[in-house]
Amino acid sequence: MPQPTYDVVAIGNAIVDVLAHADDAFLVRHGCAKGAMTLVDANRAEALYGAMGPGAEISGGSAANTVAGLASLGGKAAFIGKVRDDQLGEVYRHDLRAAGVAFETPAASSGPATGRCFILVTPDAQRTMNTFLGAAVELNPEDVDEELISRSKVTYLEGYLWDRPEAKEAFRKAAAAAHDAGAKVAFTLSDRFCVERWRAEFLDLIQNHVNILFANESEILALYQVKTFEEALPRVRGHVEVAALTRSEKGSVVVKGKEVVKVPAEPIAKVIDTTGAGDLYAAGFLSGYVQGRPMDECGRRGAIAAAEIISHFGARPETSLQKLVAEKLKA
Amino acid sequence: MPQPTYDVVAIGNAIVDVLAHADDAFLVRHGCAKGAMTLVDANRAEALYGAMGPGAEISGGSAANTVAGLASLGGKAAFIGKVRDDQLGEVYRHDLRAAGVAFETPAASSGPATGRCFILVTPDAQRTMNTFLGAAVELNPEDVDEELISRSKVTYLEGYLWDRPEAKEAFRKAAAAAHDAGAKVAFTLSDRFCVERWRAEFLDLIQNHVNILFANESEILALYQVKTFEEALPRVRGHVEVAALTRSEKGSVVVKGKEVVKVPAEPIAKVIDTTGAGDLYAAGFLSGYVQGRPMDECGRRGAIAAAEIISHFGARPETSLQKLVAEKLKA
Repeated sequence: MPQPTYDVVAIGNAIVDVLAHADDAFLVRHGCAKGAMTLVDANRAEALYGAMGPGAEISGGSAANTVAGLASLGGKAAFIGKVRDDQLGEVYRHDLRAAGVAFETPAASSGPATGRCFILVTPDAQRTMNTFLGAAVELNPEDVDEELISRSKVTYLEGYLWDRPEAKEAFRKAAAAAHDAGAKVAFTLSDRFCVERWRAEFLDLIQNHVNILFANESEILALYQVKTFEEALPRVRGHVEVAALTRSEKGSVVVKGKEVVKVPAEPIAKVIDTTGAGDLYAAGFLSGYVQGRPMDECGRRGAIAAAEIISHFGARPETSLQKLVAEKLKA
Repeated sequence: MPQPTYDVVAIGNAIVDVLAHADDAFLVRHGCAKGAMTLVDANRAEALYGAMGPGAEISGGSAANTVAGLASLGGKAAFIGKVRDDQLGEVYRHDLRAAGVAFETPAASSGPATGRCFILVTPDAQRTMNTFLGAAVELNPEDVDEELISRSKVTYLEGYLWDRPEAKEAFRKAAAAAHDAGAKVAFTLSDRFCVERWRAEFLDLIQNHVNILFANESEILALYQVKTFEEALPRVRGHVEVAALTRSEKGSVVVKGKEVVKVPAEPIAKVIDTTGAGDLYAAGFLSGYVQGRPMDECGRRGAIAAAEIISHFGARPETSLQKLVAEKLKA
């Protein structure tokens, strides 16, 4: 294997977040599943947007947030995903490149507009997501640049991709290319409902294609259909090389073979918006992983990056995570 | 005069803000005038955007921020301004209407895209603005709905409009319609460089058409070409019924006939981004003015609204200002 050019290449839905404050009554009134990611069609998207308050447009997308975070941590990152050749698509490309991420997937020149995720942030700082995939549905196997993947240490895939057949095909092609190049495949379960929709296929993927797994507590319980976190640990141990499992304010647990490392959550003055917490945990974790750091440091990096992202609106870092992590690790 | 439908109708440039962090070296490298609003053409806009970091798109525009603030304060507000029929134009209309502001000016169906302001926020929380007017240049006298103006207690105009002949005509038409209806005309000087460009015309406007003037210290000094704030006070007293003059952390001074009221700035834990401070001061002030409140309360309302806006990114309120003001005035 020649020297890799990138630490991580991520493949995911390219989505512009539209963040707005809302109260719990709004979620009830509009039938939104609190804390979850729900796919919405164009009509539902329009109705929700019409009803919600003023928004802030900030580029997002789960896997893209992770590589934006990795770049802020000093890593070399690339992204594969689909926007349209419209204003929001240009904004999206600008933001990712300005974050230091290589992003060359051509924009769609027809079909639906660049995807948007209407994110309602309730007073408890929880986020509820309603995603109109838009042009992201146009991602197909041809967009997966095998040469790019072969030049990357880790190929990172989001569970959200699994909702569409062409994206599944793209996913499988990417995983195969990574393994052929002797590189690692990382996977995030993304969302509990996503796990419930695709449980059998996810289990197959994890056992046969995934080296590094990211999940939060409710996702891993849903995957193994168990009631307690402790029951999930031995199950996941046999399935992947490394599992990094997040538990919100309880911190995270890293399982690597027989090793089980508990990492505390990073203290934070005030949680403003939890959007991107898992994405940035993965960014921090991978920034250590690609440098061969020990698991406790990888987890700590994840915790620090996640703490930064939940201290403000939006899922992209607002400060140099590299500097932040260096300070915190020294302290 | 029949019972007015609106407290304030504002006329201004409809602009989507693109907010990004930058350091002072970036401003120097790209020749940006720190703290000022500079008009940029399409080429310069593209070059700046290409060089700047990831942005957050938040609807803005000075006068529009003021009416969005007024609506949050419980007032009835309308806006006249020009977007294009593109994605950002739709975002802009959504955000203003979602804030509770009536906005019926038809979008341009040809010509430049919806205007954007590239706002660079430096670590000292100061904002430096580079505005590509885009579709805002299409605002013309026909867009000024005289009937709407006649139904509003106050017509609020921004100095930024004065950079284009058609907008000047629109401005004059609006002022005349307001006076014909027995309503008040409010005017903000907007920016020191804007005052310097149009000093003679601004003086004429203020003496002959304006009832309520808003300005910050550097703007009022530039208008009267005086060296100290104290020298400006007697000058402005003879020119308008009410002048509300802001001095950043030194608070504000309201001049109404012989009355001179000093209002302290509202204490704030941490200034994050000064974008919109003047716009929201005007919103708070006018929310008291249209209810016939005394000048000290009008100024206090302005200070409270300005303090909220500088405590976060973007120039639109993130909480109910009506509730906030009620709490603060009671305390």
